[in-house]
Amino acid sequence: MDLRWYSIVIDSRDIAAQARWWAEVLNWQVVFESDEEAVIIPRWSEEEMAATPFDRVGPGLVFVPVPEEKVGKNRLHLDLAPHTSLDRQEQADRLLALGATRADVGQGPDVTWDVFRDPEGNEFCLLSSRDR
Amino acid sequence: MDLRWYSIVIDSRDIAAQARWWAEVLNWQVVFESDEEAVIIPRWSEEEMAATPFDRVGPGLVFVPVPEEKVGKNRLHLDLAPHTSLDRQEQADRLLALGATRADVGQGPDVTWDVFRDPEGNEFCLLSSRDR
Repeated sequence: MDLRWYSIVIDSRDIAAQARWWAEVLNWQVVFESDEEAVIIPRWSEEEMAATPFDRVGPGLVFVPVPEEKVGKNRLHLDLAPHTSLDRQEQADRLLALGATRADVGQGPDVTWDVFRDPEGNEFCLLSSRDR
Repeated sequence: MDLRWYSIVIDSRDIAAQARWWAEVLNWQVVFESDEEAVIIPRWSEEEMAATPFDRVGPGLVFVPVPEEKVGKNRLHLDLAPHTSLDRQEQADRLLALGATRADVGQGPDVTWDVFRDPEGNEFCLLSSRDR
């Protein structure tokens, strides 16, 4: 089925700042920017992209401007996972250093993930390490 | 940077129904299901997965149960893109046949994408066709 999940679009107050922040978090690149949207994708080479089947290219992140502030908990959120070669605490410390803040969405003390907010308050989780 | 965008988590009223609906839309597969979550990923073979670098595996979709109904427009939404070999209208008709409904989020008549809602009201867009 030739339908690809192309991107996640994130309503933002400051699309330039949000695109740069998430590109830093994921080590992605800003590939398009205008007043209407800022787009980040993984750092694939043209050769990598050309060699990857249409439906095997993962989605990018697109930040679009909205006038309204975030209200309440988002109904969709990103989960991030560190590779097994890295320690989750190390990644959590890095996210906090980049400006993420810890969030309490009622997850309780015993869960195996950390909950954060990005600079505009969007919730996201840092999962335990995994190799795939 | 060994941090992977692992999944998008979608708060849902009926995680089993939502997982099956989105798996049908994307031609993905349900790979895990419990009372706490339902997970769908692309139909990769174990060989494909093993041959793909950690940070080149695209995110999955995870549906988790919440008691609250959706309120207002989601701050994050999915964009889908048909392959150039397919017509956008054909894809729009397929989505409607699967139970998507058209949504007016103020996009106006002249945009190059269609806006839909999934069975639980989550907004998503169908973009114009593209080859990558």
